[in-house]
Amino acid sequence: MIEILFLGTGASIPSRERAMPCVAVRCGTDIALFDCGEGSQRQMMVSPFSFMKIKGIFITHMHGDHFLGLPGLLQTMGLSGRKDKLTVCGPKGMSAALDSIFSVCEGNIGYELDIREAEHGLSVEFGGFSVSAFRTDHTAESFGYKLSEKETRGRFNKEKAIKLGLSPGPDFSKLQNSETVKGVTPEMVMGPPRPGCNLVYSGDTSPCGELSDAAAGVDALIHESTFSDRESGLAADHKHSTSVQAAETAKACGCRALFLIHISNRYDNKGEIEEEAKAVFGNTFAPDDMDMYKVSKDSVRRV
Amino acid sequence: MIEILFLGTGASIPSRERAMPCVAVRCGTDIALFDCGEGSQRQMMVSPFSFMKIKGIFITHMHGDHFLGLPGLLQTMGLSGRKDKLTVCGPKGMSAALDSIFSVCEGNIGYELDIREAEHGLSVEFGGFSVSAFRTDHTAESFGYKLSEKETRGRFNKEKAIKLGLSPGPDFSKLQNSETVKGVTPEMVMGPPRPGCNLVYSGDTSPCGELSDAAAGVDALIHESTFSDRESGLAADHKHSTSVQAAETAKACGCRALFLIHISNRYDNKGEIEEEAKAVFGNTFAPDDMDMYKVSKDSVRRV
Repeated sequence: MIEILFLGTGASIPSRERAMPCVAVRCGTDIALFDCGEGSQRQMMVSPFSFMKIKGIFITHMHGDHFLGLPGLLQTMGLSGRKDKLTVCGPKGMSAALDSIFSVCEGNIGYELDIREAEHGLSVEFGGFSVSAFRTDHTAESFGYKLSEKETRGRFNKEKAIKLGLSPGPDFSKLQNSETVKGVTPEMVMGPPRPGCNLVYSGDTSPCGELSDAAAGVDALIHESTFSDRESGLAADHKHSTSVQAAETAKACGCRALFLIHISNRYDNKGEIEEEAKAVFGNTFAPDDMDMYKVSKDSVRRV
Repeated sequence: MIEILFLGTGASIPSRERAMPCVAVRCGTDIALFDCGEGSQRQMMVSPFSFMKIKGIFITHMHGDHFLGLPGLLQTMGLSGRKDKLTVCGPKGMSAALDSIFSVCEGNIGYELDIREAEHGLSVEFGGFSVSAFRTDHTAESFGYKLSEKETRGRFNKEKAIKLGLSPGPDFSKLQNSETVKGVTPEMVMGPPRPGCNLVYSGDTSPCGELSDAAAGVDALIHESTFSDRESGLAADHKHSTSVQAAETAKACGCRALFLIHISNRYDNKGEIEEEAKAVFGNTFAPDDMDMYKVSKDSVRRV
């Protein structure tokens, strides 16, 4: 089960309603952040997620609306006493940009920054999940990311364990931690491992093969939808996607749910964007800032 | 008359209640911005002030909480179609930092940026006001700024003009624009020019002579108040001021009103800070984010 918190769902320029792009995904207690537009740290402060639990930050490309919240967030984590290593992955140039900003702003980090230069196929492992990068098609060098939750242990059959003569307490814990207890092996009382959930975060991109490959069969596709279908020319000119293109990708790739973000402030409300995507792919959502969804293998629901 | 809008009143790290430092001052329709912490552009979007009316931005020092909202704001003004020249004044290093950020973020400005390197005594003129810089005492090179509204024309004596045989309409306009009409000179019907208001914005600083010199007799002193009086040791260590030090400066300098900002998030509420300053200097205000005040020669009032 993963939880998706939409911290910022706007594009290019913030509005009263939408902050700059930033999506937090929680697996267990660990958090991955995708893009970090200006103001993301404050959005997180008013959310139920703690920025101290972020294990990795993944920047899709270096346009300001996706990157300019990163220096402040990194600095705030340091000032808040973070000691844990933090992985930050982004395109070529990101590391030098951070160095340059911190040198002039006297950024005091105080914890290990593990900077990774994104490249197609790069994979980063964390405790409960991994994140891999794939190339996308935008006006700057750009990447999308796929998060894959690791499989979790199977269901423990308490009744069967009792029938086999064991008692609740330490014996049960040992079995769940793969130990044999009084002749009872874990396999006898544990169900098969449960597959993890996965999601793809597109960043800014025109529809492209690498994105479709990554999105095949994912539980959640978080796709940019800068323009509505009637402005597909503008989308092509600026190497963005329309709502309908996002929905067509979700449909063609057999995704379970589609979330539309990076919606231009030219649209007074998201209704148009959401409706035309839903007509192509029914299980489409156009979240507002601070909306949170739980995605499991059984359901996708707003919480 | 000047209007002061407190867009961000926090220090170092944003909180749910306080954004990073940014204060907008409006003279007529023109706006000067003092500091530009992360998120300032969005604070301005939900305020009654338009960022397109900003004529000058004045950065006190290059610590992230005072600077990291500037690149995004400059970019947003460009994307919003700004064509007017914008003056941006700040310490050495600011210009190179902006260049470096815009080169990696592909910042598209599209209007003239007039970058001024701050130095003690520098003065910048605008239509209705001027802003001068003075050196302050912080851990980085730092400046405070004094804004002086230009004097405005005197009151027009309508009754006297009518007695002298003139009629409301074009004749009145001409007189108010310094023209003689039918033998009536402007001096005969216009009162003396009215002096403008002035204010000082301290930035981050320990109490220092240059600040006191600038603040002598000003209508409004906007002073940092990072710490309460009981933490004066911390204030000294980090070259900040306490609320009481700010109030003592306001009192010694004969300021008309004191506004405390840059309040550390270690204080759950501003009561302590405000009360101890008021005990020294009665006309003290500790504004919340988005509070606005009108300052004239007759009154200082929240609007």
